[in-house]
Amino acid sequence: MTQQLSPAPVTVLGMGPMGRAIAAAFLAAGHPTTVWNRTAGKAGELLARGAVQAGSPLAALGAGELVIACVIDADAVHTILDRALAESGRSRLPATTLVNLTSEGPGRTRELAARADELGLLYLDGSIMTPAAAIGTQATRVLYSGPAALFDRHRHTLSALGGAAVHLGDDPGRAASFDVALLNLFWTSIAGLMHSFALAARQDVPASALAPHAQQMAGLVADLLPGLAAEIDAGRFSGAESASLTSVAASLDHIVHTLEEAGVSPAVARAAKDAVDAAVSAGHGGDSTARLAEFLGRGDAGVVPRT
Amino acid sequence: MTQQLSPAPVTVLGMGPMGRAIAAAFLAAGHPTTVWNRTAGKAGELLARGAVQAGSPLAALGAGELVIACVIDADAVHTILDRALAESGRSRLPATTLVNLTSEGPGRTRELAARADELGLLYLDGSIMTPAAAIGTQATRVLYSGPAALFDRHRHTLSALGGAAVHLGDDPGRAASFDVALLNLFWTSIAGLMHSFALAARQDVPASALAPHAQQMAGLVADLLPGLAAEIDAGRFSGAESASLTSVAASLDHIVHTLEEAGVSPAVARAAKDAVDAAVSAGHGGDSTARLAEFLGRGDAGVVPRT
Ligand SMILES: NC(=O)c1ccc[n+]([C@@H]2O[C@H](COP(=O)([O-])OP(=O)(O)OC[C@H]3O[C@@H](n4cnc5c(N)ncnc54)[C@H](OP(=O)(O)O)[C@@H]3O)[C@@H](O)[C@H]2O)c1
Ligand SMILES: NC(=O)c1ccc[n+]([C@@H]2O[C@H](COP(=O)([O-])OP(=O)(O)OC[C@H]3O[C@@H](n4cnc5c(N)ncnc54)[C@H](OP(=O)(O)O)[C@@H]3O)[C@@H](O)[C@H]2O)c1
Repeated sequence: MTQQLSPAPVTVLGMGPMGRAIAAAFLAAGHPTTVWNRTAGKAGELLARGAVQAGSPLAALGAGELVIACVIDADAVHTILDRALAESGRSRLPATTLVNLTSEGPGRTRELAARADELGLLYLDGSIMTPAAAIGTQATRVLYSGPAALFDRHRHTLSALGGAAVHLGDDPGRAASFDVALLNLFWTSIAGLMHSFALAARQDVPASALAPHAQQMAGLVADLLPGLAAEIDAGRFSGAESASLTSVAASLDHIVHTLEEAGVSPAVARAAKDAVDAAVSAGHGGDSTARLAEFLGRGDAGVVPRT
Repeated sequence: MTQQLSPAPVTVLGMGPMGRAIAAAFLAAGHPTTVWNRTAGKAGELLARGAVQAGSPLAALGAGELVIACVIDADAVHTILDRALAESGRSRLPATTLVNLTSEGPGRTRELAARADELGLLYLDGSIMTPAAAIGTQATRVLYSGPAALFDRHRHTLSALGGAAVHLGDDPGRAASFDVALLNLFWTSIAGLMHSFALAARQDVPASALAPHAQQMAGLVADLLPGLAAEIDAGRFSGAESASLTSVAASLDHIVHTLEEAGVSPAVARAAKDAVDAAVSAGHGGDSTARLAEFLGRGDAGVVPRT
């Protein structure tokens, strides 16, 4: 494949597993790549492959036509901008495009976008929905939001990350709204899975014995998902032909009980049970699981967290 | 296909969505099928298709070579046995095989198996890992445990449920151990998903817009699962190349914060966060997610539920 433009110089701020994977992908696609990390010594292998280490945040920002931030949270991005500003002695930073691939909530993301604007930076937000190991492969999925024209301008450079890039709209917080909802699913599922492996181990079932069955369960969640979404959007909540919330509450009851007996924390299952119980108490015991989304989305659902 | 034996008479106790689906599958496979339910009037359509309604629990038990119980929990099965005993005026019930497809924890399942034995019943336990709508199709998956010879004797009759039947061993509680671990994954994932849909709705993202991305996330859990299981069984917990628990804690932090801001209960995400935070506090911040299973499985992990 012939490259139509010579690859743009890029900077990657943050050398955690994801920042390193991103820098490696840019290098592999031929981009002059500058890296920076708060703590030195994390970029070793990348430098051997041609990456340049910036001496400071300001130098890092100045080196890229596109500057990717991929650090632990929005506060860390602010800290890097603070340091660059202090270094420059001015109130604005050298004009460039900041693509923030740090995972954060929509509110803090919009604050960061507004600050970038004040500092004279163009700002795109992105949320990476796949693990670091997927970067540079067809498996990568990144959701972007921010000005459509800005996304279009850098789409080609960002394609070095591989896979699918979806632009969700001009609101810089939009990708983060999706990100948080999706990560909530991911991390509650993974937390549930880790409790399941712990419970299995306490009952002399090794993780590898549970895994094929657990994989079917995770696949079942994926299979049921479009039908549940359709029920939620249509407001169809009958549990007569599936499983009623009363039946789900009974299942969660023996799940909590068995975790407790086995000495594994029942807290995640119990929080799920509290939500189901609250919906049952509100009169929805005969309804399907889909009702739970409507119930929780009321905002005044009265699902009091056990704090 | 020629049937080698004439189909055995079966009984189904419980006419919830699952009990009805099971009875329908036996009828479709040509088995003389007797049904019973605590509350009358639930079997309507099945009777039209040839099912016979038993007048009492004792009559129901007497009618089947194989008696399936599929009710809300083990207590409900005990209640049905109590009623049959009271009716018979004896201390033992007419000999038959009870296949309990009611979902329950391993402890209560073993108690039930012991009681069935005392009452002169042969006992097999099964856990249905697929929704009622799958019964009678290739998608069905049932895990069984109890005497292997008994399972073999009834395997052909049970194949009317369709799909895969896996025998996990002679301990009648074994299938329940798997069941609880798998249902914990399923219901925490579904609870997480319902919170995600609720959060999305509060941010003007309809369920159908989130669904394709959420389906990818659920698929990602399935894809990552064998690798996580291998890490757990091997005790390999380095987070250097994936995502560290410190990074996961940061993600869960903004998930909880965003749920709170949106007025959706953060309780499930917070319980997940508590578990991750406890592992980080114990010095595992640099480790991968797999560490969580080992940590939670210690039994003294000090993950104090917020009760
Ligand atoms: N890893 C994955 O598989 C994955 C998948 C999807 C999304 N993500 C997201 O990608 C982002 C980066 O993840 P990651 O796994 O690469 O690493 P991480 O563990 O989330 O973050 C580590 C990075 O943040 C930097 N950092 C932390 N506090 C800082 C501060 N106050 N000032 C400046 N830098 C600071 C660290 O620098 P030091 O080295 O100096 O500590 C390091 O570069 C996160 O938002 C994560 O949620 C990751
Ligand atoms: N539905 C599914 O998709 C699904 C999937 C996998 C596993 N399962 C498992 O299959 C089992 C049955 O589920 P289900 O959805 O069909 O129904 P369910 O809502 O869990 O249970 C309803 C059945 O239990 C009976 N019952 C409740 N309390 C009773 C008592 N004290 N004495 C006698 N009977 C009593 C009900 O009788 P009344 O009509 O008189 O109330 C009804 O027949 C459960 O263990 C469930 O976890 C279900």
